[in-house]
Amino acid sequence: MNELDGKLDPKGIALRREVLGDTYVDNSLDGSDEFSWPLQELVTSHCWSDLWARPGLPIATRSLVVVAMLTALNRPHELRTHLRGALNNGCSAEEIREVLLQSAGYCGFPAALDGFRVAREVFAEEGIEFPKV
Amino acid sequence: MNELDGKLDPKGIALRREVLGDTYVDNSLDGSDEFSWPLQELVTSHCWSDLWARPGLPIATRSLVVVAMLTALNRPHELRTHLRGALNNGCSAEEIREVLLQSAGYCGFPAALDGFRVAREVFAEEGIEFPKV
Amino acid sequence: MNELDGKLDPKGIALRREVLGDTYVDNSLDGSDEFSWPLQELVTSHCWSDLWARPGLPIATRSLVVVAMLTALNRPHELRTHLRGALNNGCSAEEIREVLLQSAGYCGFPAALDGFRVAREVFAEEGIEFPKV
Amino acid sequence: MNELDGKLDPKGIALRREVLGDTYVDNSLDGSDEFSWPLQELVTSHCWSDLWARPGLPIATRSLVVVAMLTALNRPHELRTHLRGALNNGCSAEEIREVLLQSAGYCGFPAALDGFRVAREVFAEEGIEFPKV
Amino acid sequence: MNELDGKLDPKGIALRREVLGDTYVDNSLDGSDEFSWPLQELVTSHCWSDLWARPGLPIATRSLVVVAMLTALNRPHELRTHLRGALNNGCSAEEIREVLLQSAGYCGFPAALDGFRVAREVFAEEGIEFPKV
Amino acid sequence: MNELDGKLDPKGIALRREVLGDTYVDNSLDGSDEFSWPLQELVTSHCWSDLWARPGLPIATRSLVVVAMLTALNRPHELRTHLRGALNNGCSAEEIREVLLQSAGYCGFPAALDGFRVAREVFAEEGIEFPKV
Repeated sequence: MNELDGKLDPKGIALRREVLGDTYVDNSLDGSDEFSWPLQELVTSHCWSDLWARPGLPIATRSLVVVAMLTALNRPHELRTHLRGALNNGCSAEEIREVLLQSAGYCGFPAALDGFRVAREVFAEEGIEFPKV
Repeated sequence: MNELDGKLDPKGIALRREVLGDTYVDNSLDGSDEFSWPLQELVTSHCWSDLWARPGLPIATRSLVVVAMLTALNRPHELRTHLRGALNNGCSAEEIREVLLQSAGYCGFPAALDGFRVAREVFAEEGIEFPKV
Repeated sequence: MNELDGKLDPKGIALRREVLGDTYVDNSLDGSDEFSWPLQELVTSHCWSDLWARPGLPIATRSLVVVAMLTALNRPHELRTHLRGALNNGCSAEEIREVLLQSAGYCGFPAALDGFRVAREVFAEEGIEFPKV
Repeated sequence: MNELDGKLDPKGIALRREVLGDTYVDNSLDGSDEFSWPLQELVTSHCWSDLWARPGLPIATRSLVVVAMLTALNRPHELRTHLRGALNNGCSAEEIREVLLQSAGYCGFPAALDGFRVAREVFAEEGIEFPKV
Repeated sequence: MNELDGKLDPKGIALRREVLGDTYVDNSLDGSDEFSWPLQELVTSHCWSDLWARPGLPIATRSLVVVAMLTALNRPHELRTHLRGALNNGCSAEEIREVLLQSAGYCGFPAALDGFRVAREVFAEEGIEFPKV
Repeated sequence: MNELDGKLDPKGIALRREVLGDTYVDNSLDGSDEFSWPLQELVTSHCWSDLWARPGLPIATRSLVVVAMLTALNRPHELRTHLRGALNNGCSAEEIREVLLQSAGYCGFPAALDGFRVAREVFAEEGIEFPKV
């Protein structure tokens, strides 16, 4: 919880915290100044309250869809954030891997290779380990 | 079934037919000549046998992930094909809509608007109707 | 004016009509069904009420900025819409031309050539003519 | 030859005609008005005189490199133009096919499929036929 | 001033220095070798002499248009350079912010978030501070 | 040679080693775990055995085509890898430079500038030096 939460869309900030975690969200909010604050308001309202909070798709599936878009769009910083979100939303590492593998065929291998590099860093930070081949 | 099927990866062509439908696949194969045939071989083997046929993700979820990538990549021709595939794989119109709405926040509204335009054409061709507002 | 306006963000729909024109907006609204209606709500609220209506940038400059983005993003359908909007917002054909020429250096000549093609169609439809060279 | 040639970079317009053909270039020039003329000047000077006319790469290889870029950039109109240019520069259909196939792995299959579609139209217009499989 | 200036388009190098600053331009020129020199010649002539120096658009507006394109194109290194240029050309931080906010709706939030991150670094380096929220 | 080679497509891994070098490939393989191994299998089979090993285009030309695609696609990590591959495949620094210069006209100067930056780092690491201007 953060005193700035009260200035943001309540449904949006609650879901954003649930998916991305308090540490990440507090960092974003505490780093805000009057230059960047309008973006915090818009992302909380537009993305979280008006999109992520919609019914019609399980939230884990929504995470996989966002991972797919970010891989295609070549946005590694947001991909890192939403890979953590995908784990929080209950996606397994195997499901995430399948999305990234599927990107090899649709976005090309460079997109998939870049996506795997980010995913392995996130998994290492989260203490998720895989056996060596 | 098509006599050219025998020249293609068997697992790949079977799944490609199951997802995209015989009419679409027969058109692709019958239109092939020696210029384009290697691409038919590669797409059947690489995309269908080696990616779509993998376990680890329900095939309907894989469809939504591919719809997400194609929306981000701005590839309306393939998007049309895979929207039909998504319906064949059991995705509901509502689930497809949620993926396209989510793209508004991550790929921008022009991507979402272009995606909706393609989706409405596909749904009209498939006889799927929605009540007027 | 359209009876559906009442279901949309009032500030957003008013500005959207002012910039894009009643004919365009009525076509979008009248063509809506329950599949596409949520996108109409979001675009009216997110793009028009929360972005276009902001102070801090003259609306003609905002139009040029959006033309620049759509040229870079390769979205000709939305580019067409916003070239009309730019004219409505008081941008001159010369200013629009300068944005498209600038895209040659930053997005590459194919982007600029595609942008000029759309612009010439829009100008022809709007009755704006230029002397032959 | 066209009376407007005299207003353009001489080295650039000569090479542009050689690669893209007189019909294409005359159409571009004759369709010009004062709105689009600056782009004709810039493309002739920047692309043709300052890039295409450079030594250091055989012109057929330069064509294949441009086909690769246009496939990656998703610019079908310019791809069509430069596929014709590649044929004029002595590239074989097989070499063009290899570039498009290579794009499947690096840009993804949707890029390759879109590229093949354009290539087959160009080849048909040029009377280049391939045996059925 | 730099002895290499004499080898470059005079109008272009003068404007490039005016917009991007001597420190940046001297670094680019002093770091040049025969491999990269042709690019220095082309960027000075094509971008600066032939595009930036054109009349028809106030130079501050041209800066905002370039910031919009670079945000859409996902090119953070050039975005950093041209955010500095925008400040030199008299754009206010508020105007820059409005362009980046507008990108949220047209390029998607990941583009806007990446753009804000670069902008805040540039502003910090330039000693521009904003009150905390 | 690496004990994991035996688990990969033999034609693909041999060519991948020949083009990218043993050091790079051994790093990729030794860093693999069960999460990333399927991508190693796919890239070796799809890209190397099924695309790079194809006849129809000299391997040096194929390298230039891939450099062109990666520049357009904005994938600096893979560009670095394939610039080294291009040198191994016999491309000269001058040929590579021409591809990157050509990208200025087709992908825009930001793509060319980013590509030159990566190329100069690769050349420095490989001990390739150019005279100062």
